[in-house]
Amino acid sequence: MCRFVLYLGPRTRLSSLIVDPGHSLIRQSVHSREREEPLNGDGFGVGWYANDLSVEPAVFRSITPAWNNRNLQNLARVVASDWVLAHVRAATQSSGVNEANCHPFRWRRYLCMHNGDIGDFRLVRRKLLASVCDEAFSNVYGSTDSEHFFALYIDSWLAIDDDDPARRMARALKLAIERALTLVREAGSGGYNYLNVAIADGDHAVVSRFTDDPEAAPESLYWFNGSLYPELPGPNGHGMGHAVTVSSERLTADPGWAEVPPGQIIVLRRDLAPEFMPVLAPASSRRIDRTA
Amino acid sequence: MCRFVLYLGPRTRLSSLIVDPGHSLIRQSVHSREREEPLNGDGFGVGWYANDLSVEPAVFRSITPAWNNRNLQNLARVVASDWVLAHVRAATQSSGVNEANCHPFRWRRYLCMHNGDIGDFRLVRRKLLASVCDEAFSNVYGSTDSEHFFALYIDSWLAIDDDDPARRMARALKLAIERALTLVREAGSGGYNYLNVAIADGDHAVVSRFTDDPEAAPESLYWFNGSLYPELPGPNGHGMGHAVTVSSERLTADPGWAEVPPGQIIVLRRDLAPEFMPVLAPASSRRIDRTA
Amino acid sequence: MCRFVLYLGPRTRLSSLIVDPGHSLIRQSVHSREREEPLNGDGFGVGWYANDLSVEPAVFRSITPAWNNRNLQNLARVVASDWVLAHVRAATQSSGVNEANCHPFRWRRYLCMHNGDIGDFRLVRRKLLASVCDEAFSNVYGSTDSEHFFALYIDSWLAIDDDDPARRMARALKLAIERALTLVREAGSGGYNYLNVAIADGDHAVVSRFTDDPEAAPESLYWFNGSLYPELPGPNGHGMGHAVTVSSERLTADPGWAEVPPGQIIVLRRDLAPEFMPVLAPASSRRIDRTA
Amino acid sequence: MCRFVLYLGPRTRLSSLIVDPGHSLIRQSVHSREREEPLNGDGFGVGWYANDLSVEPAVFRSITPAWNNRNLQNLARVVASDWVLAHVRAATQSSGVNEANCHPFRWRRYLCMHNGDIGDFRLVRRKLLASVCDEAFSNVYGSTDSEHFFALYIDSWLAIDDDDPARRMARALKLAIERALTLVREAGSGGYNYLNVAIADGDHAVVSRFTDDPEAAPESLYWFNGSLYPELPGPNGHGMGHAVTVSSERLTADPGWAEVPPGQIIVLRRDLAPEFMPVLAPASSRRIDRTA
Repeated sequence: MCRFVLYLGPRTRLSSLIVDPGHSLIRQSVHSREREEPLNGDGFGVGWYANDLSVEPAVFRSITPAWNNRNLQNLARVVASDWVLAHVRAATQSSGVNEANCHPFRWRRYLCMHNGDIGDFRLVRRKLLASVCDEAFSNVYGSTDSEHFFALYIDSWLAIDDDDPARRMARALKLAIERALTLVREAGSGGYNYLNVAIADGDHAVVSRFTDDPEAAPESLYWFNGSLYPELPGPNGHGMGHAVTVSSERLTADPGWAEVPPGQIIVLRRDLAPEFMPVLAPASSRRIDRTA
Repeated sequence: MCRFVLYLGPRTRLSSLIVDPGHSLIRQSVHSREREEPLNGDGFGVGWYANDLSVEPAVFRSITPAWNNRNLQNLARVVASDWVLAHVRAATQSSGVNEANCHPFRWRRYLCMHNGDIGDFRLVRRKLLASVCDEAFSNVYGSTDSEHFFALYIDSWLAIDDDDPARRMARALKLAIERALTLVREAGSGGYNYLNVAIADGDHAVVSRFTDDPEAAPESLYWFNGSLYPELPGPNGHGMGHAVTVSSERLTADPGWAEVPPGQIIVLRRDLAPEFMPVLAPASSRRIDRTA
Repeated sequence: MCRFVLYLGPRTRLSSLIVDPGHSLIRQSVHSREREEPLNGDGFGVGWYANDLSVEPAVFRSITPAWNNRNLQNLARVVASDWVLAHVRAATQSSGVNEANCHPFRWRRYLCMHNGDIGDFRLVRRKLLASVCDEAFSNVYGSTDSEHFFALYIDSWLAIDDDDPARRMARALKLAIERALTLVREAGSGGYNYLNVAIADGDHAVVSRFTDDPEAAPESLYWFNGSLYPELPGPNGHGMGHAVTVSSERLTADPGWAEVPPGQIIVLRRDLAPEFMPVLAPASSRRIDRTA
Repeated sequence: MCRFVLYLGPRTRLSSLIVDPGHSLIRQSVHSREREEPLNGDGFGVGWYANDLSVEPAVFRSITPAWNNRNLQNLARVVASDWVLAHVRAATQSSGVNEANCHPFRWRRYLCMHNGDIGDFRLVRRKLLASVCDEAFSNVYGSTDSEHFFALYIDSWLAIDDDDPARRMARALKLAIERALTLVREAGSGGYNYLNVAIADGDHAVVSRFTDDPEAAPESLYWFNGSLYPELPGPNGHGMGHAVTVSSERLTADPGWAEVPPGQIIVLRRDLAPEFMPVLAPASSRRIDRTA
């Protein structure tokens, strides 16, 4: 089922998210608290943006567990960024542990991480692939439901025309979720979907907390508004505005952590307050409500 | 482009093929002679049958090079079989080095290895996948042209009705090659195919040596009739008949090595002499000629 | 702290120990019951003897966790032996996860696995290495206390003259433990030793359950006398006598599992009942009591 | 025998050294020109300093070859530094391929890379380890001659008192080489040493080109004075002075590359011209000559 964390704000070390907090992502790789099975030891990945160096983000992924990876420890201490994504994986039986199956996945400037699963994915995979454009199809290298979901997102994003980049991302995520639900429903096996999905482009991010299982809550997801970590001067000698962290589990005991409401997408932009948008809005209300 | 070896005969150690000969497969992973680029260092795999223990063969694959893998050295010394396949990989740029992309690939009792490539594979991949049945589709876990070709084979094998298992395999391989050629031709980019493909089921094997490039020879392929290696008593205390080795390059300086003729499939059955069959036979001659 | 299992008896598949039992070693890699921290995910190793093929045993080790390793699953299904050792590792902070640090360790025909630790190993390492002969020293490739303990064993074994191979192994293990205790005591830091150690040579094995911590029990260790698993015909068409399994935790719910008594070494020989020997016997009683 | 590169100068991407030049380090991992065997495929490592973030440098090492490692490609594009070391390994038979054996090795702020070998290392290892202080001893985690040489360096550095940090490093390297030669000579087997060694501390670096084999030249080593790569603004918005690159082979066809003279140590300091110092100077001339 996996755990992940996403950070946007003043430049900070990767270790501030992955290693240092009391309930850091590495801690969650061994002892996550809000999953029945606490272990997320089937590989990991980190991604970050270095906008002064490359439009494409860095990605470092590995098939060994996060808790014993020396390279991760070393990079986390020395790499700093104002945009960080990190993910620890708990593989499902059907998809092997190899780097192509580790999150985050990348397409152009976009990174994608997933916590959850597509219901009865094996029944859905073919139709899903058949439904996307060549560019989305060609970005699939492995066998996870998560990477296939990202193909749905890419295809949706390419089909949407919106001047506001964050809104376009949120609408694409919403559409991709709707399409996944339809594909699973049409497969007829009665499976449910758990779709906590984070997508970033280096300037904006959208993160959903969603399930269509009527008898269950979605996977846990929290956000924290403001600074939790040591902030470092940016490349231009000053910080970069407001900090927001979104995480599968609370990284610290700080009372400021809030749940992302079930069924919502949190939309992040640099230096603006986060917004929320329902995943399954009535058509008439497809606008973003500024709620925070 | 890769190198591979396949052995059928009295029980022998894996090391007899992989480690010991003067031009062993491990030697070929560093210094292959019949490729322009001598290096085949992008992972490897071995497969073998232990028919008394399991209908499904063993597969051991790794992303590290064959020449420095201690596990391979250890297994090769202690594992013996009357059926061995082994492959060292030279990855093309588009598909990453991970275990899902290492040969041999498996489906049911079948193992598949490939040396070569499908012309302009990225243009062909979607149509190829769309053309095969669900079972063949579901066996694709990675992103190599080789594994996708195996899906074509599986689909072809399932569609062919033939009482003779070896002939069914040969006809399926032939059909899969024809289908690959059609797919590439329809893609319209003018790419050519190099399809040295080995498929085994523990009792029979078929290996093609083929290209449709009118200006080039197919990749090298040799076979050796008879014993090259120390033979070991079988599980029942006796040997198991005739030995045949098929290999991308001659493993030894023995003058008995013969080229597999271009455009031919070599068909192996336990204790029978190998047969040859043209890949692109006129429809009227689709029978197996006993030529050896 | 690790978990391990050792089997001697009629030929059986590796999977009978590693995969199939309700509390198999793979299960113990995620959910061990008798350690405070249930996780043993820092690599693993298996070793087995194929006496008809090689005097040296096979060893397959990996830095990825046992529970998600496809090669282990594949080998376990197809490899059978009358002598199997397997180990899942929980690394201590000071020694990294790499193949040289995975158990079992090998020297000549001998394999060694360890569950526990040498007290304040960093203070002891130099003197330990200085105390052993060149051959024992040269067998150390990594940085674990376990591999260094094995060097103590090798040195002790070389120094002991005994016509009975099993007794020589037991005496060497006892001497190595005594030497480790002395080294730690002389380091003066007050650390304690946990030394559940298994050593095999393909015909005999010795396994200790020991700690010198007066306030704690040694790590758990059990043995099972007789058949637990499907037995397979041996290379000569018949089984090979009596089965014994020694394991950090009970593999099954069978009531026949017995604790190895604290402070004892269990001594195994083909087709003979196990014997026990105290680790720290009074000098006058340094003989093996046949107790089982 | 390995290949390496070291860079000090204005901030540049890792890719400028590792990926982009016509004869980049990745190119040298497959097709080095100045070794008999062109292959350096037994793992790799990169290290760099991020002085604003950590006094300890970053190290990223891997057992897979440099040419197919996606993480390396990704990091090289997005990580920039004013201090970079990178190494591709060709393992000798006796030491396995694992991360502990990959260069660069680290101690405190220091990084060490080696190209060459200590003559008959197996005969020397014990005495070498016995000759160094506890702190140097405790930094040895693997089994390479290179890491053991670094222990000699650490011990020598700790024993030398010199106010000039670069001179202290050069004297320590010189002393470590002398000690290695003495150890090998005393072993009596007549082996020779190849000691191209690079050591950096984030502000200074020393690199030797040396062999005591009277019938052979030392391994190749070149340096380039000035800018070869795209320079990036530093953390403070400006470049950081003069660029120097030291590399086993010329990275480019630029005529400005010069050989490091055999038997010399090149000494680098930020913003000063490189100096040279003989490895085996007569005692009376143990001063650094400013020659460049």
